[in-house]
Amino acid sequence: MLSKAQITLISSLQNKKFRKQHGLFIVEGIKSVIEFLSSSYQVDSIFYTEDVLAKVGKISGNIKSYVLTEKEFEKISALKSPQGILALVHIPKQAELNVLDFKAKHTLLLDDIQDPGNLGTIIRTAEWFGFQHIICSIGTVDAYNPKVVQATMGSLSRTQVHYIDLKNFILEAKIPVFGALLNGDSIYHTDWTNEGFIVLGNEGNGISDEIIALVDKPITIPRIGEAESLNVAVATTIFCSEIARLKKL
Amino acid sequence: MLSKAQITLISSLQNKKFRKQHGLFIVEGIKSVIEFLSSSYQVDSIFYTEDVLAKVGKISGNIKSYVLTEKEFEKISALKSPQGILALVHIPKQAELNVLDFKAKHTLLLDDIQDPGNLGTIIRTAEWFGFQHIICSIGTVDAYNPKVVQATMGSLSRTQVHYIDLKNFILEAKIPVFGALLNGDSIYHTDWTNEGFIVLGNEGNGISDEIIALVDKPITIPRIGEAESLNVAVATTIFCSEIARLKKL
Repeated sequence: MLSKAQITLISSLQNKKFRKQHGLFIVEGIKSVIEFLSSSYQVDSIFYTEDVLAKVGKISGNIKSYVLTEKEFEKISALKSPQGILALVHIPKQAELNVLDFKAKHTLLLDDIQDPGNLGTIIRTAEWFGFQHIICSIGTVDAYNPKVVQATMGSLSRTQVHYIDLKNFILEAKIPVFGALLNGDSIYHTDWTNEGFIVLGNEGNGISDEIIALVDKPITIPRIGEAESLNVAVATTIFCSEIARLKKL
Repeated sequence: MLSKAQITLISSLQNKKFRKQHGLFIVEGIKSVIEFLSSSYQVDSIFYTEDVLAKVGKISGNIKSYVLTEKEFEKISALKSPQGILALVHIPKQAELNVLDFKAKHTLLLDDIQDPGNLGTIIRTAEWFGFQHIICSIGTVDAYNPKVVQATMGSLSRTQVHYIDLKNFILEAKIPVFGALLNGDSIYHTDWTNEGFIVLGNEGNGISDEIIALVDKPITIPRIGEAESLNVAVATTIFCSEIARLKKL
């Protein structure tokens, strides 16, 4: 059985203000929910249909669980094709960032990425390539937005996403800053050294002026055709792949 | 003024059957429409608002043009934020493919890509990297689907997209076939030779069995994290970037 209060709570979590207020976000889909259950995230409650319960079995432990009819489930799902399972997961406390954790590795910094699908694809791709942290400017779209969560395909459960003042963090960290810009050196001839921040900018405006001022090495993805720009998730992919190359896999 | 017949025609073009029947597809947005006007595609007609007309000027030549009120324009636009300009463009005749055109270069072959956003992103990214042809299986989503056109951000105007029986084409061409597969050699150690077909498969099922049987070199993007898969447009991006690397840009 589903109460009116539960329907109201779940639908309110589409909105960042209420996610913050309740400290919860939504995860939908069997694969994603299972991945969050076996992650360091704390799952609050699970809603599933009889069919899905039969597939995944009863969830044990401290997690509240509710079996719904298909009709009830449709009321809480935001997907076009509901998969019959939805979890409410606690938003983790923002850990204090320790700059020492970012030495001797490469880390992605996102400067005001706006599109949820782009952020989700970036998290999924970065996690494939072993990036465990994503550092976002305060203005970047919320990683707990349901569209972002969906697009990460479960990879969010294995990624720490931080929201901070990028400028202060860069100034404090003293780590070389590589910036994805249109007039830099070819990405294919970059000396990545053994550590670095890689900054990707907003879909329309690129990297903000105050962050451009802190870029040590402007890097460009060479263009052969005439397209005006690359999608930011596509550009991020190419940076991730070039860093993966360094590991001689 | 906008007639009922025009509204019916334009909205019918969301549907592949009617695009085929009328031989027309929809392009929306100032940048995209301008790029199609200066391409080899033949523009049939343009619909714009007074505001956009003032910005872009009257289109000369043989193209029918219609000035609409904002309200009329909203009736024909499929975008959430209509940009005030929409063109109907003729679908080009499928050129006979000549295998000689694919010698001494690398070409993308798409095996049943289903998501319009993925195909659009692939066309945009491939065009950035100088790929002029995209070869699609018959079952691949239609490149003239308005969502695909939109996601290409104008790059479709500079790309030839072909729909053919991939198996017969591969057998006829006698060009080495590289396949994006999970258990192949690392993409970072691939000898790409001077020519090749690069096959990317369906979002859920990968490359079909009949095409896998024709793959000469299975290629894998090494995974460091635990994500189950990469988005197909992301995987295609990494293949395009590795081919671009060969050009020493």
